[in-house]
Amino acid sequence: MPEAPGAGADALVERAHGGDFRALARVISLIEDGGPRLRPVLKELAPLAAGARVVGLTGSPGAGKSTVTGALVKAFRERGERVGVLAVDPSSPFTGGALLGDRVRMQDHATDPGVFIRSMGNRGHLGGISAAVPQAIRALEAARFGVILVETVGVGQDEVEIASMADTTAVLVVPGMGDSVQPAKAGVMEVADVLVVNKADRPETQQTVRDLRTMVALASSAWKAPIVTTVATGGEGIGELMRQLDRHWDWLSHSGERERRRLARARDEVLELAVGAVDGRLARAAELAGLAARVADGGLGPYEAADELLATLGLPPL
Amino acid sequence: MPEAPGAGADALVERAHGGDFRALARVISLIEDGGPRLRPVLKELAPLAAGARVVGLTGSPGAGKSTVTGALVKAFRERGERVGVLAVDPSSPFTGGALLGDRVRMQDHATDPGVFIRSMGNRGHLGGISAAVPQAIRALEAARFGVILVETVGVGQDEVEIASMADTTAVLVVPGMGDSVQPAKAGVMEVADVLVVNKADRPETQQTVRDLRTMVALASSAWKAPIVTTVATGGEGIGELMRQLDRHWDWLSHSGERERRRLARARDEVLELAVGAVDGRLARAAELAGLAARVADGGLGPYEAADELLATLGLPPL
Repeated sequence: MPEAPGAGADALVERAHGGDFRALARVISLIEDGGPRLRPVLKELAPLAAGARVVGLTGSPGAGKSTVTGALVKAFRERGERVGVLAVDPSSPFTGGALLGDRVRMQDHATDPGVFIRSMGNRGHLGGISAAVPQAIRALEAARFGVILVETVGVGQDEVEIASMADTTAVLVVPGMGDSVQPAKAGVMEVADVLVVNKADRPETQQTVRDLRTMVALASSAWKAPIVTTVATGGEGIGELMRQLDRHWDWLSHSGERERRRLARARDEVLELAVGAVDGRLARAAELAGLAARVADGGLGPYEAADELLATLGLPPL
Repeated sequence: MPEAPGAGADALVERAHGGDFRALARVISLIEDGGPRLRPVLKELAPLAAGARVVGLTGSPGAGKSTVTGALVKAFRERGERVGVLAVDPSSPFTGGALLGDRVRMQDHATDPGVFIRSMGNRGHLGGISAAVPQAIRALEAARFGVILVETVGVGQDEVEIASMADTTAVLVVPGMGDSVQPAKAGVMEVADVLVVNKADRPETQQTVRDLRTMVALASSAWKAPIVTTVATGGEGIGELMRQLDRHWDWLSHSGERERRRLARARDEVLELAVGAVDGRLARAAELAGLAARVADGGLGPYEAADELLATLGLPPL
């Protein structure tokens, strides 16, 4: 017998709130799936979600994000913080928290009840992964994690968008790769609060630092992103990275930027849910196939077709 | 005095149709901007857009996409085809067709009236870059290009989506990079009609080919993607790549898949335009900021907030 959508939502959330990792993992799976059982869970989560400190990490594949994340987990644990990690891959449809990468990474923290690590893919959430991530952050907040690390691959727009949901966003760059500064240029640069040149034992490090310094100097933002060099595999530079993350966290509170980001995050979340709903309805409209055929044959312009599609929901034309 | 939105749309499209590259470049700029002047232009383009052969190329940064694109331009030119190239970077807000990369690449074909190369970024089109690309393809079709190459960076979902708009999608992989097969796994694999292991003079080539062969064997699709090895800088393997592209093109026609893809492309285009319009209206709703504040404070669930937002357009709840 299938359970009713709301069955057990309160008990599940209560268990996650009480520190039950299996319940928390189940909540995040419900968020990934975005099915009818999610709505009552989110309603239960809302009042429990206190303000954790959310740190985003992004950068090209191979920049060493997992290693830096691991080093930051260790550093925050040494301060006594409980740390939740979301490793988000917007281009991946799978996961469910059982990726090989997770298991490998979990080994260091497998017996530590203060660390929770979870992969998230794009599994059918109504508003896409961009709507799912703030909900997963809320779930980790409800489970009383004080620090939440959100790690994404930093190339596409989804990834940049997700990284910028954090209070502080660190962008990782590798020295000397021709492409290393390219992702930084392409939209990632604007969301970087701290720049990390990882694998800084490579000879091209100083040139990369100089290039980044020039970029930062040209930016017009109130906060100038500091540049930190690390060799995360050996733990080098992690202390300095923590200091810069703390400095940005202080600045966020003093400048009012933290509140602004929190509101922007909620705004994006609500908007993506609503737009996702409309997207689903328009995609299911019986008229769409016929309109598409006329556009493909050149008999109808795409804007005119979109107008007719909007009219099926009673919406005015473009 | 500002021009009326429709002023000169017919003349501009007529010039692009007649082979005027400056007019064509102007049409694609209008498409990127997505402003009010675009609509009449698209209406003029619709009946002129004949069925070009569209080949998509994607792959990680550093896979050699530009070099392979250049080699394919040369090969199609030797057959007497007129070739249009769209180099799409969904994560880049700039361009306007004057990128350094364009100019460097144009040098080989600068005096060839049968080749048109153009970069496209994400410049504010209503439906995003995913809606702009099919329109740009239509512009190149109207300018009587028989072959259109669409090149994107293959990491995020937008990129995969754009690459899969082509009739035939080639995915480039570099041998021996730990990450090289990762993008292939993450959503790109499903859209690959032809797999290209470029830089195949590297020692790890055979292992990469074996890995890809295993992946292809596991796929359940009717078309099994062939694997081609190339050293595009020296032109090696390009003949075989052309043969496999032709083989897929024949298969598309015989299987009915070509017509299916053409309809799916038009469907996506219409849908993205309509959804983009709704997104813009919801984002401008006066109620959104207040709803976001209540969600941020935990007083309202995100789904309840989305319901209230949808109601501002007279739409039913989730």
